[in-house]
Amino acid sequence: MSITFYSGENIPLEMHKVRIVQKLNLPPVEDRVAAIREAGFNTFLLKNEDVYMDMLTDSGVNAMSDRQQASMLEADDSYAGSATFTRLSNKLTELFGTKYFLPTHQGRACENIISQVLVKPGQTVPMNYHFTTSKAHITVNGGTVEEVFKDEALNLNSEDLFKGNMDIEKLTTLIEERGAENIAFVRVESGTNLIGGQPHSVENLKEVRAVCDKYNLKLVYDISLLADNLYFIKQREDAYKEKSIREITRELADQAHILYFSARKLGFARGGGIITNSEEDYLAMREFITLYEGFLTYGGMSVREMEAITVGLDETMDEQYISQGPEFIKFMSDELQKKGVPVVLPAGGLGCHIDASKFLEHVRQTDYPAGALAAAIYIASGARGMERGTMSEQRDENGVETLAHMELVRMAMPRRVFTLSQVKYAVDRIAWLYDNRELIGGMEFVEEPKVLRFFFGKLEAKT
Amino acid sequence: MSITFYSGENIPLEMHKVRIVQKLNLPPVEDRVAAIREAGFNTFLLKNEDVYMDMLTDSGVNAMSDRQQASMLEADDSYAGSATFTRLSNKLTELFGTKYFLPTHQGRACENIISQVLVKPGQTVPMNYHFTTSKAHITVNGGTVEEVFKDEALNLNSEDLFKGNMDIEKLTTLIEERGAENIAFVRVESGTNLIGGQPHSVENLKEVRAVCDKYNLKLVYDISLLADNLYFIKQREDAYKEKSIREITRELADQAHILYFSARKLGFARGGGIITNSEEDYLAMREFITLYEGFLTYGGMSVREMEAITVGLDETMDEQYISQGPEFIKFMSDELQKKGVPVVLPAGGLGCHIDASKFLEHVRQTDYPAGALAAAIYIASGARGMERGTMSEQRDENGVETLAHMELVRMAMPRRVFTLSQVKYAVDRIAWLYDNRELIGGMEFVEEPKVLRFFFGKLEAKT
Amino acid sequence: MSITFYSGENIPLEMHKVRIVQKLNLPPVEDRVAAIREAGFNTFLLKNEDVYMDMLTDSGVNAMSDRQQASMLEADDSYAGSATFTRLSNKLTELFGTKYFLPTHQGRACENIISQVLVKPGQTVPMNYHFTTSKAHITVNGGTVEEVFKDEALNLNSEDLFKGNMDIEKLTTLIEERGAENIAFVRVESGTNLIGGQPHSVENLKEVRAVCDKYNLKLVYDISLLADNLYFIKQREDAYKEKSIREITRELADQAHILYFSARKLGFARGGGIITNSEEDYLAMREFITLYEGFLTYGGMSVREMEAITVGLDETMDEQYISQGPEFIKFMSDELQKKGVPVVLPAGGLGCHIDASKFLEHVRQTDYPAGALAAAIYIASGARGMERGTMSEQRDENGVETLAHMELVRMAMPRRVFTLSQVKYAVDRIAWLYDNRELIGGMEFVEEPKVLRFFFGKLEAKT
Amino acid sequence: MSITFYSGENIPLEMHKVRIVQKLNLPPVEDRVAAIREAGFNTFLLKNEDVYMDMLTDSGVNAMSDRQQASMLEADDSYAGSATFTRLSNKLTELFGTKYFLPTHQGRACENIISQVLVKPGQTVPMNYHFTTSKAHITVNGGTVEEVFKDEALNLNSEDLFKGNMDIEKLTTLIEERGAENIAFVRVESGTNLIGGQPHSVENLKEVRAVCDKYNLKLVYDISLLADNLYFIKQREDAYKEKSIREITRELADQAHILYFSARKLGFARGGGIITNSEEDYLAMREFITLYEGFLTYGGMSVREMEAITVGLDETMDEQYISQGPEFIKFMSDELQKKGVPVVLPAGGLGCHIDASKFLEHVRQTDYPAGALAAAIYIASGARGMERGTMSEQRDENGVETLAHMELVRMAMPRRVFTLSQVKYAVDRIAWLYDNRELIGGMEFVEEPKVLRFFFGKLEAKT
Repeated sequence: MSITFYSGENIPLEMHKVRIVQKLNLPPVEDRVAAIREAGFNTFLLKNEDVYMDMLTDSGVNAMSDRQQASMLEADDSYAGSATFTRLSNKLTELFGTKYFLPTHQGRACENIISQVLVKPGQTVPMNYHFTTSKAHITVNGGTVEEVFKDEALNLNSEDLFKGNMDIEKLTTLIEERGAENIAFVRVESGTNLIGGQPHSVENLKEVRAVCDKYNLKLVYDISLLADNLYFIKQREDAYKEKSIREITRELADQAHILYFSARKLGFARGGGIITNSEEDYLAMREFITLYEGFLTYGGMSVREMEAITVGLDETMDEQYISQGPEFIKFMSDELQKKGVPVVLPAGGLGCHIDASKFLEHVRQTDYPAGALAAAIYIASGARGMERGTMSEQRDENGVETLAHMELVRMAMPRRVFTLSQVKYAVDRIAWLYDNRELIGGMEFVEEPKVLRFFFGKLEAKT
Repeated sequence: MSITFYSGENIPLEMHKVRIVQKLNLPPVEDRVAAIREAGFNTFLLKNEDVYMDMLTDSGVNAMSDRQQASMLEADDSYAGSATFTRLSNKLTELFGTKYFLPTHQGRACENIISQVLVKPGQTVPMNYHFTTSKAHITVNGGTVEEVFKDEALNLNSEDLFKGNMDIEKLTTLIEERGAENIAFVRVESGTNLIGGQPHSVENLKEVRAVCDKYNLKLVYDISLLADNLYFIKQREDAYKEKSIREITRELADQAHILYFSARKLGFARGGGIITNSEEDYLAMREFITLYEGFLTYGGMSVREMEAITVGLDETMDEQYISQGPEFIKFMSDELQKKGVPVVLPAGGLGCHIDASKFLEHVRQTDYPAGALAAAIYIASGARGMERGTMSEQRDENGVETLAHMELVRMAMPRRVFTLSQVKYAVDRIAWLYDNRELIGGMEFVEEPKVLRFFFGKLEAKT
Repeated sequence: MSITFYSGENIPLEMHKVRIVQKLNLPPVEDRVAAIREAGFNTFLLKNEDVYMDMLTDSGVNAMSDRQQASMLEADDSYAGSATFTRLSNKLTELFGTKYFLPTHQGRACENIISQVLVKPGQTVPMNYHFTTSKAHITVNGGTVEEVFKDEALNLNSEDLFKGNMDIEKLTTLIEERGAENIAFVRVESGTNLIGGQPHSVENLKEVRAVCDKYNLKLVYDISLLADNLYFIKQREDAYKEKSIREITRELADQAHILYFSARKLGFARGGGIITNSEEDYLAMREFITLYEGFLTYGGMSVREMEAITVGLDETMDEQYISQGPEFIKFMSDELQKKGVPVVLPAGGLGCHIDASKFLEHVRQTDYPAGALAAAIYIASGARGMERGTMSEQRDENGVETLAHMELVRMAMPRRVFTLSQVKYAVDRIAWLYDNRELIGGMEFVEEPKVLRFFFGKLEAKT
Repeated sequence: MSITFYSGENIPLEMHKVRIVQKLNLPPVEDRVAAIREAGFNTFLLKNEDVYMDMLTDSGVNAMSDRQQASMLEADDSYAGSATFTRLSNKLTELFGTKYFLPTHQGRACENIISQVLVKPGQTVPMNYHFTTSKAHITVNGGTVEEVFKDEALNLNSEDLFKGNMDIEKLTTLIEERGAENIAFVRVESGTNLIGGQPHSVENLKEVRAVCDKYNLKLVYDISLLADNLYFIKQREDAYKEKSIREITRELADQAHILYFSARKLGFARGGGIITNSEEDYLAMREFITLYEGFLTYGGMSVREMEAITVGLDETMDEQYISQGPEFIKFMSDELQKKGVPVVLPAGGLGCHIDASKFLEHVRQTDYPAGALAAAIYIASGARGMERGTMSEQRDENGVETLAHMELVRMAMPRRVFTLSQVKYAVDRIAWLYDNRELIGGMEFVEEPKVLRFFFGKLEAKT
């Protein structure tokens, strides 16, 4: 909850107290240099014990509540007829109004199944923006992803409050061009991940649904980052300022034919699932659960995590809980901006995104400015972010680099894990780095695997 | 640990004490009749609160140790460089001597990936016996499963101590007939599930490996039920009576090119993985982990469960821990046999298997004797077993029943969950039922879904 | 829940399943000999890692339920106004109808406070039987304990179902003799510990109350072992067979002016408390809580344990839960008796008591037959019981042994911890020992501390 | 760990991340007014659900580490020979070099036993400052407490870094005056609680020991608040800046004959104990453990908490862990001071102390300025502090108020529980209150119990 002090200062205030902590190390800078060198200047290859603030991802790393932890101990692990499944299933029905629930082990598992059932070779899937795994599964099944985002979506310094909105005109044009029969489904992602955790509005989702209805298309809604998006709707969308989080949730859910989520994000736990009111879709997807996931009562999840999701979903309806992430991200982005550091604006969910192209104008894109910046931030602070640029792309068949649209370093903000002091520490170190940015040069691969180079590759300073 | 008393009696004795219990209900018999009627006489559809002893499966329902539960609280959930991943990975290397570990969310996920990588359309996979999900993934990828078990494997009343052994001659013949180039790989399953948790010997696995070497084929080894198999080797295979469980484990692992497991069975937790020493296979499979499972450091598992697996694998090397399951199963099978009830012999791992064909000689196979018996056992005892017969098959394209090879009711024995008194109770109730078996008639479907009828279907007494 | 099988056998059946286990060791017999030798043939000095079945006490060692363990994680540890205190306090009011609750860290702490407030030098406290700590605190405050038990109470082979009853005539006579003004209060102990966990009846408690009313005396009721006593009332007292455990609880509580308990026994956790409807007594005792225990909202307890007590008290109202202890004890006693081993009858709560005088008729009481038997049972079985005889007494001021009324070995039965197989194992080993009892000789001290010799003393075989 | 930023700002930085949180409520101000009114303007009587930041105490309310929580699940609850006791006992020996350990349920229990053994009627106990329970037990046993603090100790705005030091001259004078034979023992309290958590130096403790040696007196050292004191020694005492926390701990422990602690403070758990190298003292105190506390292997503690203490003691040797409390307190005190609010200086451990006399110069001491301020702070902020002034005293036998030396409101700082943002929030609200302090008037009792009026009493605004 963000509050304004008598002193005039405005800071996000935690509406929880801390019960259990885990020790962190902040190695001295010379050890950090040695650690990143050993990791091939690739933050993915750092050992966690050498990392002070792990801001690599927000997924599966959120702090739990005492109620979640307690619930895990009462899980009913029976294979069929389990009370744990029933509790989770009922909670989903209560919040989203959906009748059918297919449990999966996490978000990408939903995408595998939805794509296998709905995508035919040659078909197109329009979406507000792609996510890596969604795109992969559509492609594997012979489909093509088309992004119909607003132009503003890629503007790194925008004032658009809903950069995640779909461009309705582009959507209609695309459908007309390809023919509705060649559209597998329309996908909207809440809290759009790859453009910086940017939200869409309720209004936009309703418009997308209207287009779907017109062309008799299915609307598939990825609600993994719903918590952030709900917060932004409540804060930013006039028509919803007086509505409760529960009411907004239900109104969003009512627009979609199929919803799915990763519980590593939604629900502060681990697992996932597909929910729908369509019996036909449910029946078509059901057998894939037993093939890929697990039995229909747990879908590959741990029953303990299922209990935690049930409680976590309930807590997601509490504005004070879900505000913590976006408010900390906004704080970090605002503070960096004040010190001149180029960040993506407006601040979204998920994390604070630093614009490496502007930060390191002297580093050519082929020399991986985002990768170099991520490594430098680690050296300067002990905080670990994730490269979101050309290093994460793959070379084409001729070995030519595929340049990314943006060169970003994402400093993810795990929910309820770090304190504002720690965030201020990271800000301070990044500001110092910005003032000394000429110290940072480009990099080149010394070990470059053909696939997953962003994870396994090792680099060196380019000379 | 089985001990012989001064009194001459021999019973399995728990080498642990109980720390945490969970309340069970035993509804009165009239409530059980109402419950099974509401469940369409299908044990899968019973609510767990109506079940006294849930013997549906041994998978994911085992009791944990205090050390496992404690370890879960110290999990390091970082996405990359996590100490939890390192601990599990190192434990696998320590026990199995393998270098590479690909984490997955459970056993069938391994089968998906192995099949996608190794099976080409038209190829054959010989195996000692199929398991449902292994067969499904080979088939989905265009392969064919061929079982090369010994004739004795299907003898329900055998004295063969290693009914899970592969028939080496049949294997060689099959390879010669199809041509080695048309063999995707050879699969051996430890503690062979579908023939009643029956073990194979070390010697047999070595012979299979020799054949693989001769034809340059890969040996894929499913070690999900390894714990039971290890116990049986130690008890039954002369050359290994003096070897430690660790030594036997390593000797088995050394035979295989690729091993995989479900941690819902191996390790008393939830999750799974593929391990190998082959860099080539590792690299080929690796990208599928990120596509289907999760990042390479957790593969879709909960990090808490990963910690529990690490401890659970260690405990699997303790003969006293792994003996409890097989000994309880043997006790149940022996006691039932003493009372005339037809059971699969010798007793294997996983559970006690009752021969429904002999139990209900007056019920035709098309009237689902195993299904009827499972329902009747529930009514008589409140214990829930699983039908393993024709009900679990699917009709062919013309709607004709596919008759199962065997009509069994499996009473699975979750490890360390039930006490011997409870097992004796189940035995007593089944013995009563056997003496009154004429009360049980056949069944017919009143709701029969096309797929997964064993789970969703509802039946009635046939008139 | 005790059930009779179709086969005619009758055994106690657990109405719970096992969730968490803890590894036990059963060292080989030569190691057990070495261990007990090192422990000076004193079972108190054995290291727990050398003990297979720890039957030393039933106090603080009971298995918890999953609900208890989960509740501990939601404790509110605030010093004042804590929800945890409120929940426990309300539960006590709900079950016992009392208005005031003074929390303490365990049973003897209640006795300290009650004695300081109610006992004046020279006064007498009549009781059905003393307990060590109750007697100590009354004595420290200048009072005298007088036991007014029925003659039958000390008959080790009785058919009296309520050996814990107070002898009303003796009570009245004592009061008349000493004068009511010299009686501090009357104390009744449920599940009377030192005579073998023997119950009293509701009727008897009502009669005691009538006497108290006549002489205007306070009735103080120790309900630490209430769970066992409730079970026995329900089983044995005709007027209460149709009443619920809750109704019986309330009827008992209504007789007493002050009740107190150790939660190491009542509530399956750790802690304790005093409850009453008397404002005057409450106010008088209150300041001692802050002096000796802790603040009035936790009284020296862990808040986690307070939550567990609240759940545990609720579970105590479930006959299936509380029956497990007494039924296992009865099973053990009956089986030992069948094999000729002399045990205290009828079986009570708390544990099975073996009559060492009869078991070792050839050992003189001054040679500690109960101590020798306890050591021998450990050697023969790895099970550890507690000496309850002359070794537990102290020499008088002249160094002369105080001979105990009874020479018993108590094999306590922690609730829900051991399985019936383990109990049968202990029975078998004790039966073997009985058949070879001539192997056991007397003992003498080689190190005999002046106080607490039962705990710190070391002995040797007497030659 | 306090760090200075590139920006020049200096803030305390947490060296841990958050794993488990507990929801807090911040009721709107009108609800807070209603709540404090219902509580009789006594912060002790507030329900915790109405409190946003509970700063009543630092005792038993600290956040645990994941390692502590995990250790609790592996506790060995055996009554004798328990591994849990052995682990804790060995850890105490490792850290303090003491041979004997007597477990108790918390700090005041130690004081009961030490006083019963060492204090004879008429004897005096000199101490650096009294603590409520220590004084009570000495008084109950007929002794008298004499405080021999330095004059500076009561200066609320001092620059003395070791206000907890004993005045050696006053000590010697006192001993000479009373005669060494009339001194029961000398008591030093680390992190002296009632003068604001102020430390003593190693040097001073050595000097006290020298005096004790000269007069052959025992030095009893209360180490409940040792963690804070260790931090201050390391920060402030030149000779110890290069020594490790472990070395300082040992050097302190070596000075004392008997040490005791409450584990609600030392060890971040619940419980306590007495440690010593004196066999004589150990033997003398031992029997009181079984009388008042519990058996010698657990002393009335929960075994789970004992495991947590063992880990917590280890963590106490980590400067980064123990710095968090004092640094947050210093931050709060400094920030308040900057805004003009009168606080006790230098900041000590335990909590931030506000000088109510100066804050409310217009309120007479008999109108309870500290009580009024505590109530006002709650209304203004939702944070709950503790009155430390005349309200906490008792009237004399004639009903005349005993005026306290100081009128303080203590805002305790539970370790690792609150974030710096929350502390800043409290500072901001208190600063606002200071600027509007004329709103606050005096109070008078409307319900005033004879004892414990600070806890049970209800007040109203004086008109």
